[in-house]
Order: sequence, then structure tokens, then C-alpha cells
Amino acid sequence: MKKYIVEFIGTFFLVFTVGMSVRSGAEPVAAAIAIGSALMVMIFAGGHISGGHFNPAVTLAVTLRGKAELKDFVPYWVAQFAAGAVAALLVTALFNGKPAGGAALHGTMPSLIVEFLFTFALAWVVLNTATAKGTSGNSFYGLAIGFTVLTGAIAVGGISGGAFNPAVGLGVFVMGLENIQQLGVYLVADLAGGAAAALAFKSLNGQE
Amino acid sequence: MKKYIVEFIGTFFLVFTVGMSVRSGAEPVAAAIAIGSALMVMIFAGGHISGGHFNPAVTLAVTLRGKAELKDFVPYWVAQFAAGAVAALLVTALFNGKPAGGAALHGTMPSLIVEFLFTFALAWVVLNTATAKGTSGNSFYGLAIGFTVLTGAIAVGGISGGAFNPAVGLGVFVMGLENIQQLGVYLVADLAGGAAAALAFKSLNGQE
Amino acid sequence: MKKYIVEFIGTFFLVFTVGMSVRSGAEPVAAAIAIGSALMVMIFAGGHISGGHFNPAVTLAVTLRGKAELKDFVPYWVAQFAAGAVAALLVTALFNGKPAGGAALHGTMPSLIVEFLFTFALAWVVLNTATAKGTSGNSFYGLAIGFTVLTGAIAVGGISGGAFNPAVGLGVFVMGLENIQQLGVYLVADLAGGAAAALAFKSLNGQE
Amino acid sequence: MKKYIVEFIGTFFLVFTVGMSVRSGAEPVAAAIAIGSALMVMIFAGGHISGGHFNPAVTLAVTLRGKAELKDFVPYWVAQFAAGAVAALLVTALFNGKPAGGAALHGTMPSLIVEFLFTFALAWVVLNTATAKGTSGNSFYGLAIGFTVLTGAIAVGGISGGAFNPAVGLGVFVMGLENIQQLGVYLVADLAGGAAAALAFKSLNGQE
Repeated sequence: MKKYIVEFIGTFFLVFTVGMSVRSGAEPVAAAIAIGSALMVMIFAGGHISGGHFNPAVTLAVTLRGKAELKDFVPYWVAQFAAGAVAALLVTALFNGKPAGGAALHGTMPSLIVEFLFTFALAWVVLNTATAKGTSGNSFYGLAIGFTVLTGAIAVGGISGGAFNPAVGLGVFVMGLENIQQLGVYLVADLAGGAAAALAFKSLNGQE
Repeated sequence: MKKYIVEFIGTFFLVFTVGMSVRSGAEPVAAAIAIGSALMVMIFAGGHISGGHFNPAVTLAVTLRGKAELKDFVPYWVAQFAAGAVAALLVTALFNGKPAGGAALHGTMPSLIVEFLFTFALAWVVLNTATAKGTSGNSFYGLAIGFTVLTGAIAVGGISGGAFNPAVGLGVFVMGLENIQQLGVYLVADLAGGAAAALAFKSLNGQE
Repeated sequence: MKKYIVEFIGTFFLVFTVGMSVRSGAEPVAAAIAIGSALMVMIFAGGHISGGHFNPAVTLAVTLRGKAELKDFVPYWVAQFAAGAVAALLVTALFNGKPAGGAALHGTMPSLIVEFLFTFALAWVVLNTATAKGTSGNSFYGLAIGFTVLTGAIAVGGISGGAFNPAVGLGVFVMGLENIQQLGVYLVADLAGGAAAALAFKSLNGQE
Repeated sequence: MKKYIVEFIGTFFLVFTVGMSVRSGAEPVAAAIAIGSALMVMIFAGGHISGGHFNPAVTLAVTLRGKAELKDFVPYWVAQFAAGAVAALLVTALFNGKPAGGAALHGTMPSLIVEFLFTFALAWVVLNTATAKGTSGNSFYGLAIGFTVLTGAIAVGGISGGAFNPAVGLGVFVMGLENIQQLGVYLVADLAGGAAAALAFKSLNGQE
């Protein structure tokens, strides 16, 4: 149960930071730095308790790689999606409603490609910095993971919105920043990216 | 006594950076990076002597969690608030007076919510990266703690001013950047956030 | 073979981030942060498998310094250049063609100087943080190496385009961001800078 | 001799980054990030050989604190000032002369105050993260030291130019960015700040 609460806390602050930064009109580089840093600090704080996933695609990748217990899979997803939704409702309440301009419009195929690629990169970094023998005991895992999201937000945020995380995807949908079709993109592409990273890791690192 | 001087030094540079960045007209992302970095470097420098709180809400959280001595509680607060006031007076002197535009205006209820949440996050990160067994010996505690403030400054600085720290709150009040009502918000919400993080930490990590 | 795939993955994400950031119209500081961070996270993730070069000039430097096997030299270059070209083709496809404005124009002599200097700095940092006895076991090598590129991109990106990496150079040429003469600059100056750093390292650190 | 060459290399890249960033017209936050990162990466690379001072005020502080040999004092200063001058000449050559607008104008008294304070902070961070028992073996010293300069550049760069380093001061004077009176400020205030930090460190940490 403790692990699920930590996953809720971390995912909540990640999605809350996404929403507050975007709705406040922060310039893109500021929002990217805030979002990547939110993930970084929550991983450094919560990783020793829950593993610090805060992302259903990462939970999928870590489970496929064999470093998360199968019995935690559904509770982690529930905690993460619930945190995304709660954060979104609070952001919306603080701004007295959804954005006037409506949801962003993104091309589906480009979104699928870049969401897949950067969620692959994110899970690849997670598996190699937080679950690999070759990097055990390091002090950089949170920095590496958080700044992968920062990188993706700058590089492809304009193409897809830059979620790389289905719980963030649910959050920005509930906030009215992205439409339901884009939520579908986040679910499909991000989970596929996480799964592909797990396969790549296992074929390159063996069972360890 | 050495610990109190270190708390004074660290809090002074934090509040001085807040004031100089804002009064110089630095763009918000620059101010946020400077403020978060000021906290980070002072923690990395002073943490081994005083614990590197530089924040009455963090001192409250660490004391409740049982990792600061009760006899240090009042002297730490005195050092921190004094440093905030002295830094504010110096900033004001360097700019030949308070800002012409007067204090910022923030909604009270939104301010209370976001100050509570991000001070909770800040103290949560402090307790887990600087006082927990599971992360002992790490080299990232200053980065994690400082960048939590950076994140909050970008995400909710426009809502509440982004203090997350009653000594910073006193500083920006003395500088004329925030009014006395907002100082009240910082005292109430930030101390409540710190206390809540201590309770959350103890219930999730046990006595360790 | 595993090492070559890791070099492909890391170089691909580095060059993909370069292209997507620039083509998206990210402001220069945002692009620099994204590019430096992309290199950092890929090094933290892949360094324990392949050494995390992602740069033919770095492979040259590490080989001359005696910390990479000679038999890996050509396969590393092939993986890196192939990754740069593939990333460039994907960026171009995502933006439906090359940039309308054509390639940038840079002075040849200034470009040669700054590309040589910053690739020297980059390889100097790699050799000292990732192959030296005096820093063994550190958790900062990826941060140091990635942020050297960030520094160079801000400091001299306007002079030379800021590649410091022949595979990035091939990528930005294929993308249509730089012309073939500038690709020649990247090949000559960057490889010379990497080689010079290896010589400097060996004369200053001995054989270790 | 090796140590002096490393001091030259590190100081050269620091001052070269200062000059190229400013002369390129980088926005202030970009210049601050580049300059702080340049110092960080050179410390991470060269610290294990020379201590990574790259700053006469830091050499003064470390010598007073007893962690640098007296016989190295003059050669370190020579290497650092020479590197600052050489970097300045190269920057000036790359831009075909000094800036058309002439040197900046700064108030002398405010400059003295903020240069003293932030050089104190810089040397305080150096002594506590790179020479103290309580932080020995850490992986954050370069980050802490470099980002202290980043913080100062944003917070008080508009007041004093933000050198915190007499070798940088000589560099920006030779480049024509600051006048000779401001060079005097950098020499007096920065050396005083470094000396004050050494005294503070010794009184607070004892002889260790």
C-alpha cells in the first residue's frame, strides 16, 4: 500500500506541474524544465520506496523486464491514472475551468511516431539507470530519467504535446488541453514504446 | 552556534537571489533557475554542517521527523528569518528603495493551496533524499531539493509568488514584493505543508 | 554487436533531438538544453554497455587514449554515422521536406576554430570523467559530457552551427540545415579536436 | 607543470564561453547557463589533476584554507590570468574587434558589494564541496560550484557584470566589455570575497 501512495504522490506532482505550467502560459522552455525537474525530484524522493515509475508505460517496461512484481501492476496503474485525473481536476479548478481555446490539434501519425520514440527512450533510460547491474548504486538515475522527458518536451512537444506517459495523457485530456483522439495516441504509442524498450533491454543486457 | 551561522549564510543567499533576480527584471524562467540553483548550492555546501534547511518549514518537518534536535528549533528559525530580513534590506538598498509598482496581488485561496502543495513536495523531497535510510550516501540531495523549488516557481509562481518558505516570505514582504496578507499565507500554508510531509514520511517510512 | 546497437540508439536520439528542436523553431537556449540533455541521458543509459560515445570524434579520442578496442573502431563509426543519417531522414519526413530557407551560412575559418576548440573540450571532458583513474566511480560523467555540448551550442552555435560531432554533422547536412562544405568542417575540425584531446590527456595523465 | 596546464585549459574555456556567449548576443539566461556549465564541466574534468580552481580568488581561498601548496600560488595565478587574456584575444579576433557599443557601465559601490558577496558564496561552496571532510567522495562538487556562478550571473549580472573571478575580469576587460575601473572592482572585491570565505570556513569547520 505504501508503494501505491508514493506512486500517487509522484504522479500527482508531475501532472500538476504539467497543467499549472501550461495553463500559466509559461514559455515552452520553462515548462519543459519544470516538467522534467518535477519528474526528477519525485524519482529521487520516492524511488527508494516504489521504484518511482509515475508512468504506466514505465511500470509496463519494468514489469516486462522482471524488476516489478506482477501483483503491483494493476494497483500501480490505478494509482497513476487516478493521480493524473485528480491533478487535472485541481488544475482546472484553480483556473476556473478549461482553457478557452479548446484542445490542441496534432497530426495522428507524427504523434504516434514521436510518442513511441521518446517513450522508448524514457523507458530505455529507466531500465538502464535504475534496474541494470552496470549502473547500480549511481546517484544520477533521477536526473537521467527526468531530463529525458525535458528533452522530449522541447524536441517533439510541438508535434504530439509531449506526454510520453499515459497518466500524463489522461491528465491533459481531463484538463481540456488535448482531445480524446490524442489520449488514444498516448495510450497506444506510449505503452508500445515502453514494451519495446523492455524487449531491447532484455536482448542487449540478458537476464542479469 | 556554527550550525546557526551556516543556516544564516544559506538563507541569506537564497533570499538575496530571490530579490536580486526579481528586482533586476530577470525573465521568470531565469529567476526560477537562479533561485533553485541558489538553494541547491547552499545545501551542497552547508548540509554537512547544519543539515541545510534554510527554511523554517523544512526545520519544522525535519524536527517532527526526529532528525533535528529540539534545542535547535528556535535558533534555526531565528537565523532563517533574520537572514531573510537582512537580505531583503540589502536588496532594497541596492535598488534605492522598494519597487514602484507596489506588491503583487494574489488570490488567497489559490495561494494557500499551491503553497501548501509545493511546500509539502519540498519537505517530502528533503525528508526522503536527506534523512532516509533508503537514499543514504547519495550525491543528489541538493539537486533534488533545489530543483523542487525551481519546479514550483515555474508551475505556480504566478499564482502565489512561489515562496514555499516562510523566511523567503518574510524577505519578499520586507522587499515590498508581496503584502502582509500574502506573508500570512506563506506562514500558514508553508508550515502546514512541511508538517504534513513529516506525517506522510513517518507513516510511509516508519521510524527507521 | 550489442555495443554497436547501443551506439546506434544513443546517436539516433542525439541527432533526432538536434533536428526536431531546430526544425520546430525552438529558441536557441531551449535547443541547447535539449541537445545537451539528450546526450547526457543517453550516456547515463548506454555508457555501461558501449562506453556511450555517440560521436566519431570521441571514439577516435578514446581509441587513441587506449580505452576502446581497435576492432570496434570501424563498427562504431558505421553505427554512429548510420544513426545520424537515419535520424535526419526521419526528421525530414516528419516536417515534409527540408527547410525552405536552405542551409545556414558560416564562415569557414571561424567554424574550424570553434569546432576544433569545443570538440577538444568535449573529448577532454570524456577522457577525464569517463576513463581516468582520478575520477573512477563518479556519478557525474554524463552530466559533464552532455553539458559540454550544451555550453558549446550556446557559446559558438551561431558561429559554426555547433556540431562538435561528425555524426551530428552528417545529420544536419542530410537534413538540409548545413551545406556540404560545413560537413567538411565538422569532419576535419572535430576529428582533429578529438585527437588533440587524446594527446593532451596522455601527456598530462600518463599511461595510467 | 601539469597542474598549471590544466588550470590554463579550464580557465581558457570558461573565459572563452563568457566572451562568445556575450558577443553572440545570447539572451542573459542562456549566457548564464553556458558560463556556469563551462565551469562545471571543466571542474569535473580537471579537478582531479589541478583541483579545478580556474579563478585566482578560489586559489587564494584554497591556499588560505591550507589545501593548495604555497609554491603553486603564483604559477596558478599566472596560468589563470594568461588564459583569460588569451581567450579574450581569440574572442575579439573571431568578432573582428571589440564591441561597437563600448564597455558596460556599472555603479562602483553596488558592484563591490555584489562581487564580494557572490565570490564569497563561490569560494564557500568550493571549500565545502571540494575540500571538506564532511562531503568527501561526493559527485556533486562541479555542479555546485558551476551553478553558483550561474546563480550569481542571473541574480547580479546586471549590477556588476557578474565576474566573481579576477581572471574572468581581466578577460572581459581585454575584450572591451568592461572598463579598467570595473577590472579594479573585480580584483579587489573578488579576492576579498575569496579570503573572507576561507576565514569563515576555517572558523566554522576548524582545521579538519
